[in-house]
Amino acid sequence: MGPALIQGASRGLGLQFCRALASRGTTVIACCRDPGGAEGLRSLQSEHPSLIDVVQLDVTSEGAVQAAAQHVQQTHGKALDLLINCSAILSPSGRGETSLRDVSMKALQDTFTVNTFRPTGDGKVLWSVAAGRAGKHRQAGSRGQAAARGSGGQHVSQGGVHRRVDIIVHLQTTSWVGWYSYRMSKSALNMATRNLSIELGRGRKKVICVALHPGTVDTALSRPYHKNVPADKLFSPQQSVGYLLNIIDGLGIDNSGKYYGWDGEEIPF
Amino acid sequence: MGPALIQGASRGLGLQFCRALASRGTTVIACCRDPGGAEGLRSLQSEHPSLIDVVQLDVTSEGAVQAAAQHVQQTHGKALDLLINCSAILSPSGRGETSLRDVSMKALQDTFTVNTFRPTGDGKVLWSVAAGRAGKHRQAGSRGQAAARGSGGQHVSQGGVHRRVDIIVHLQTTSWVGWYSYRMSKSALNMATRNLSIELGRGRKKVICVALHPGTVDTALSRPYHKNVPADKLFSPQQSVGYLLNIIDGLGIDNSGKYYGWDGEEIPF
Repeated sequence: MGPALIQGASRGLGLQFCRALASRGTTVIACCRDPGGAEGLRSLQSEHPSLIDVVQLDVTSEGAVQAAAQHVQQTHGKALDLLINCSAILSPSGRGETSLRDVSMKALQDTFTVNTFRPTGDGKVLWSVAAGRAGKHRQAGSRGQAAARGSGGQHVSQGGVHRRVDIIVHLQTTSWVGWYSYRMSKSALNMATRNLSIELGRGRKKVICVALHPGTVDTALSRPYHKNVPADKLFSPQQSVGYLLNIIDGLGIDNSGKYYGWDGEEIPF
Repeated sequence: MGPALIQGASRGLGLQFCRALASRGTTVIACCRDPGGAEGLRSLQSEHPSLIDVVQLDVTSEGAVQAAAQHVQQTHGKALDLLINCSAILSPSGRGETSLRDVSMKALQDTFTVNTFRPTGDGKVLWSVAAGRAGKHRQAGSRGQAAARGSGGQHVSQGGVHRRVDIIVHLQTTSWVGWYSYRMSKSALNMATRNLSIELGRGRKKVICVALHPGTVDTALSRPYHKNVPADKLFSPQQSVGYLLNIIDGLGIDNSGKYYGWDGEEIPF
């Protein structure tokens, strides 16, 4: 498989995706906002110096997205095969708001920035790399370079011709209760996934876009909510990422625009 | 019916809701960001000086929401029966983005502020009035005043006891194609409607929350997109508001959390 970009790589599921992919020999562009503070990621990089490329990325800045896409092209000489967005917050306070009285404009803005606007920007990274539009001032030949893709990855048969397919994954948990900012932001992200799947499913270079539900995982994000989760339904990051990579390995273009649980079952939205 | 609050009252469907409600004799709190520039609204106010109360409201500011709620209580002496949110933009440019390349962080932020965060703030206005929490420094007795509701409006029978029901309406158009910022913001608003319907459907004072699709209406918002709309499906604001008030008049608590078209058909989401 060609390079994978993990957004939110400093901890939790993102860090585990980096570990699991590197152990398969996959080159990982590990993006996070503050690489200096990402000790687990730096320790993983020292184990796999040739595979883990840590990139500082704040995708709330348009320039940063352009720069990261350009970096991927220039350093790796080929486009991404896989982009996984793992960053999310429940709310700036770390607790989902169960009542409107706790919802503030600031909380909505901050939650949507991390959970919705940033992953949409991530889609733009992959799109701009795939389309050879990594920088405004790209050199002649960079489009050709972007098209020089590695072998491997997913293929789709269309009219007898196999074509490469890239994958965008948004980690996602939704249900119809409480947690205003979080649920609203993830609902909007589902719509982005659906829209992206339509736009990036057209044309010659197809990109599969899916949302995946990792289950309830023992990470900092959900730790305040583990009390009522049965022990066999509280996954370690290793377990959850194992399930999710299994799904990702089997994705085809027909799966694009959909939302799947850790067990591979489609979740309607 | 008790007072109705219309958010986005300066033009289009919002202005027409003010006109139609005032002609029924309903007191209207007509909220907009810039009352000075709202000529149609001021002209309507001069026709119905005792019914139309124009309020400057920028609900992106938390303080403004508190102030508007307090104003409603102090001026009208009773709580709202109906809140209709009519503000929306397709994007800051006025055109929906049909490609990710046209989506910017700024466009997402601005579209969500108007289409999603602001209507959620509107819900907070009604909630705080309904719950007698209109101001941090409310005077003794203000809770009682909020509870002194006018007769009329919707009623719900529960265990043989009729209780008053208020209504929040979000105007809404969604489909699974193009227009990234707009569709994403409205998808999140659907989730807010659902969450609100659960929270405000509990307890003694129930509030019905629905999303309504006005059809394609000849307003500034959708004017660039009328080319392919059949003449009998392009409504005037008068027609559309007539259909929508007909639906609103018939709403009961069982409709809460749902999304209906101008023809009364439920739209799944």
